[in-house]
Amino acid sequence: MIRAGVVGASGIAGGELIRLITQHPDMELTFLGGSSHIGRRPAELHPGLRLDLGLTVEPVTEDVADRVDVLYLATPAPVSADLAALLADRGPVLVDLSGAFRIRTPELHDRWYPKVERRPDLADRFVYGVPELIREQLTDAALISLPGCYATAITLGLAPLTLGLGLNLHTVVVDGKSGSSGGGLQLRTADLHPFRSGAISPYSPTGHRHAAEVGDFLGRSKPGRVGSLTMSAYGVSHVRGLMTSSYVFTDDAVDQRELQRAYVRFYKGHRFVRVRRHTETLIPVPDPQAVLASNFCDVTVLHDAEGGRIVVLAALDNIVKGAAGQALQVTNLRFGLPEETGLTMQPVMPA
Amino acid sequence: MIRAGVVGASGIAGGELIRLITQHPDMELTFLGGSSHIGRRPAELHPGLRLDLGLTVEPVTEDVADRVDVLYLATPAPVSADLAALLADRGPVLVDLSGAFRIRTPELHDRWYPKVERRPDLADRFVYGVPELIREQLTDAALISLPGCYATAITLGLAPLTLGLGLNLHTVVVDGKSGSSGGGLQLRTADLHPFRSGAISPYSPTGHRHAAEVGDFLGRSKPGRVGSLTMSAYGVSHVRGLMTSSYVFTDDAVDQRELQRAYVRFYKGHRFVRVRRHTETLIPVPDPQAVLASNFCDVTVLHDAEGGRIVVLAALDNIVKGAAGQALQVTNLRFGLPEETGLTMQPVMPA
Amino acid sequence: MIRAGVVGASGIAGGELIRLITQHPDMELTFLGGSSHIGRRPAELHPGLRLDLGLTVEPVTEDVADRVDVLYLATPAPVSADLAALLADRGPVLVDLSGAFRIRTPELHDRWYPKVERRPDLADRFVYGVPELIREQLTDAALISLPGCYATAITLGLAPLTLGLGLNLHTVVVDGKSGSSGGGLQLRTADLHPFRSGAISPYSPTGHRHAAEVGDFLGRSKPGRVGSLTMSAYGVSHVRGLMTSSYVFTDDAVDQRELQRAYVRFYKGHRFVRVRRHTETLIPVPDPQAVLASNFCDVTVLHDAEGGRIVVLAALDNIVKGAAGQALQVTNLRFGLPEETGLTMQPVMPA
Amino acid sequence: MIRAGVVGASGIAGGELIRLITQHPDMELTFLGGSSHIGRRPAELHPGLRLDLGLTVEPVTEDVADRVDVLYLATPAPVSADLAALLADRGPVLVDLSGAFRIRTPELHDRWYPKVERRPDLADRFVYGVPELIREQLTDAALISLPGCYATAITLGLAPLTLGLGLNLHTVVVDGKSGSSGGGLQLRTADLHPFRSGAISPYSPTGHRHAAEVGDFLGRSKPGRVGSLTMSAYGVSHVRGLMTSSYVFTDDAVDQRELQRAYVRFYKGHRFVRVRRHTETLIPVPDPQAVLASNFCDVTVLHDAEGGRIVVLAALDNIVKGAAGQALQVTNLRFGLPEETGLTMQPVMPA
Repeated sequence: MIRAGVVGASGIAGGELIRLITQHPDMELTFLGGSSHIGRRPAELHPGLRLDLGLTVEPVTEDVADRVDVLYLATPAPVSADLAALLADRGPVLVDLSGAFRIRTPELHDRWYPKVERRPDLADRFVYGVPELIREQLTDAALISLPGCYATAITLGLAPLTLGLGLNLHTVVVDGKSGSSGGGLQLRTADLHPFRSGAISPYSPTGHRHAAEVGDFLGRSKPGRVGSLTMSAYGVSHVRGLMTSSYVFTDDAVDQRELQRAYVRFYKGHRFVRVRRHTETLIPVPDPQAVLASNFCDVTVLHDAEGGRIVVLAALDNIVKGAAGQALQVTNLRFGLPEETGLTMQPVMPA
Repeated sequence: MIRAGVVGASGIAGGELIRLITQHPDMELTFLGGSSHIGRRPAELHPGLRLDLGLTVEPVTEDVADRVDVLYLATPAPVSADLAALLADRGPVLVDLSGAFRIRTPELHDRWYPKVERRPDLADRFVYGVPELIREQLTDAALISLPGCYATAITLGLAPLTLGLGLNLHTVVVDGKSGSSGGGLQLRTADLHPFRSGAISPYSPTGHRHAAEVGDFLGRSKPGRVGSLTMSAYGVSHVRGLMTSSYVFTDDAVDQRELQRAYVRFYKGHRFVRVRRHTETLIPVPDPQAVLASNFCDVTVLHDAEGGRIVVLAALDNIVKGAAGQALQVTNLRFGLPEETGLTMQPVMPA
Repeated sequence: MIRAGVVGASGIAGGELIRLITQHPDMELTFLGGSSHIGRRPAELHPGLRLDLGLTVEPVTEDVADRVDVLYLATPAPVSADLAALLADRGPVLVDLSGAFRIRTPELHDRWYPKVERRPDLADRFVYGVPELIREQLTDAALISLPGCYATAITLGLAPLTLGLGLNLHTVVVDGKSGSSGGGLQLRTADLHPFRSGAISPYSPTGHRHAAEVGDFLGRSKPGRVGSLTMSAYGVSHVRGLMTSSYVFTDDAVDQRELQRAYVRFYKGHRFVRVRRHTETLIPVPDPQAVLASNFCDVTVLHDAEGGRIVVLAALDNIVKGAAGQALQVTNLRFGLPEETGLTMQPVMPA
Repeated sequence: MIRAGVVGASGIAGGELIRLITQHPDMELTFLGGSSHIGRRPAELHPGLRLDLGLTVEPVTEDVADRVDVLYLATPAPVSADLAALLADRGPVLVDLSGAFRIRTPELHDRWYPKVERRPDLADRFVYGVPELIREQLTDAALISLPGCYATAITLGLAPLTLGLGLNLHTVVVDGKSGSSGGGLQLRTADLHPFRSGAISPYSPTGHRHAAEVGDFLGRSKPGRVGSLTMSAYGVSHVRGLMTSSYVFTDDAVDQRELQRAYVRFYKGHRFVRVRRHTETLIPVPDPQAVLASNFCDVTVLHDAEGGRIVVLAALDNIVKGAAGQALQVTNLRFGLPEETGLTMQPVMPA
């Protein structure tokens, strides 16, 4: 059994980690950490999880290293940075769900995470990436930085174009739409139900750090070049799930059949990415409701011949494939388990 | 492996059966039946389920008996009645999710299911009931009639009072609130999103057949008598999950502590019923969102001393514990498996 | 022009008062009061209201008496109590939207408003009631206490039985369902969108002070006696609108036709109460979505002959007929304007 | 009084027209037309509108010309085309809410409305456009074609750039997000509440005819050239309201201050367009919930200096400013009334 600990146990990602770890056949939850809610049991913080784990939230100290084989940092980026510094050399695999170590280019990091002092020594040791694209690097990674939820969707959507087909994408315009769970549980008036229900909230209209992350990753991952990559992000009126639309302009010639084949080929053997035709089922896909509570990312590629562009849509559950599920997926790979262990749940729909 | 078949594969309960069966470690899906959508694969009918099962929807004939060990009838009551007549003596265990065989008292059956001709021979062979209350009868049942979703919640809520404490409940007023998935997928204007979203829809304001079912079952199950039991049902503005509120008037003396203890005691050893204190977590419970996509039924009992009544609240996921999950639970019991096999998923929240 | 002021201008009811007053042909908004957000313009607090009124939020002092003819107190009960004490004898009509002066029976007041010290002198001067039932008392009222949102619905639903038909209702069980706007804009984790969306939240399962208010009012308003009146209240997954279901048991003989006639007769000439047959339109009514943003209260009465009870359903927009709209309605009556002045907006549906 | 008729009285736009006309001080509803629901009263078709108008739905014949001064065609495009042919020369002003006469360029019309045969004689007589941009053409228009809901938002968003500043926009990528009411009330499985709630539905991922309409209109309206204009449209999980995001690339130099000023200047004197700063109120704007049930279109322009683009956001209520409200606005202008007559309602929020 892999002994697992969760720091940030009271948040949404923390709760999901607890849920998925306790359902995982080869993992055991042995530590819950946090800076608030000390002494609380999971059931007090997560209404659905009336589990009898014998664990309560504790402050994190170096000693946690003896109690876990893997520690998930579901914490704000500055906290993750500090915890990584404290624990990086003490044994447990660290999987950081924050943005502290996502962006490798120093200037970009400082631009988007001004409050997280970059520690080059540490930062360079973190393996970043969507597991589908860096599977082999994970088998012996000690420090893993998980991509952001949007970044996962965008990257999985674009990779077959750049890494697969080697296209040069001179302009990529990304529009991201997310449910309210993406914003966490801070107490903000704009997130109260009366204001958030029914909203289309342009919360990041001119830029989003997940786009910087994607550009940084694709840039260093070779084949096709990505030129301008801009993003705007919106909160819409559901709770769980996001979709990214990437409007791609390239001077390279493509057609629908070739694109579809390239995507299918690229994700062959990767069960968590489902390449879907737009009209293959009752509702237009991808749609986050068709991946709810699963670790799938549904991807659809469409050649807009008339508009002279490629439209790439990607949908995932921001708390599972965008956070806790992906965290377990990389853990499985790191510990030599089949990638899907504990992650075989099918989408819950309708919900 | 238990070979399982689903009739009514294109409906909501049918889709959930497919989902849960394919996640069940000891079951294998070997048949999909229906009267429409013949030849369709699950993925075409259930957007989330892109499964490669090698199955398509087929008409049901007697021959299905050779292909399944258990057959789930997720069909309208008249269809279930016909299928039961066709298949009752041909081998497979039949689990009927409709109301065709729920009410045993002939007059009551005819009152609430006028379109389902009662066949006394067949009807008397069906075992009815919430598994928590009739566990021992299930071990060799060949024909099983699952309670309605509301009936499950009401019965689990009241049983500790009548069957446990033996109280006489002279008046029980039930108010049921359900999401839109309870109404299925028929095309009705009132169920279109623009009309159903934001609604409090009094769709059964003066009575509901699930209440008749509860009265029928509790009546023949002895200890305390249940006098007047009335029900009204409402559709509210979410998709999945229901709650029943039973406002109970009794002349017997009770207090909060005694009630709480009685409920805990009554459900000891029944992991799918969680007796919860109203304020034990971040949000008031029970609340269907805290059981979403799980097989739990959360029950809370409150003594309203000032009002001279007992308030019993029960929440469940109408598609899981109210339908497909409960169907697998009775199957587990019938086939000698641990009751929770394939049903250990924790609630998905927030969603 | 009637000069109107709003205290509590930053809250939901305060915003709605601003909206309705500025649309009222014979009213002029001349004062905005509050204890926080001093100096803010309405548009900063209410995203929809980009109005150029030349007003900002000010602290309330005695001097406000010179600037308004009517002052709306959309404030917490203790604040309303203090403001009433300050301003009751200084001229402006006070319309209090809080519960400070709703319950007249001293013991009941103290039971439900323990933090609001009862001032008998003041309390006895307040006119309480739904305008439909006390119209004539309003013409020269100086101090008006508006009923609670639930209380308005329950009272309008029951009045034709007790005050109209003179029935003795030995048991009334009320189940109230409300959208999230009923809870205001305080920052509470349970009210964040991820937790409130999809909820059926039993926030007042064993009692609600609005029921006490109804009992108090009906008790002193004569004809039929109301015996036990209990209530439970739930938050459901929309924003605006509530419904109350009153399950009524009486020993008096009634039938559907008589009930329907009695309701129509009772509300003849009262345009804001619409007596509706349950199946008269595309969706079952009453339903709060069919009164959204209007000052209507839709009422339906059903004789449940089989259950031996009467079911009374009432739906209203809790912010309009349950608060700000009703406030203007009583103001119209008080100042001799046609009751519907400024309140003729039809329901917005679908929304 | 202007005598007004509505054809398509049973649909969503039809219902809204009824609602707004009956609230308009200078209009009188004198005709309801349709091809189904003949003989029905408004209240039977629109649950909120229990109005006593003495009108029922009738088939449309030439005789309607004698009964109305203005006739609103809230009908599918082919029906509108036929009705226009029937009635164009018989007197009443026709306001068509469909797409039958929106696109003037013949090839574009045929591309996007293949089922609506173009009648050049008629088509050329229709005045098209958002009233803010063609006000003067409306004063004596006999035939008016209202823009689509999305087209209104996009055009109002872009006009200050092209018509105001005269910028050349070489690439415009539009992402449109709409609630479910935009899809009307046809019975489609994908529009049932269980499937539509929680969705992000990419229903028009590679193109939308409203974009063609915008390009056609801006193209012939001069100053700045618009090059590539592509659009994708999504259904999100609320009912009423839409937002368009236009991601604009231009080689002309701009900055935030200049853009903001240009927008304010361009819409000076146009009360229904509110130029809003992104952070001027409690929630990020524009957001359709902040214009709900009003005739406002909120527009925000943002210079994304880092991304080298301009982001233009526009939000409106698709049933009011995107349909029925705008229909009354053009009618006011046509009949010489103040533009805002009957349209002064402020947004309903929260809802």
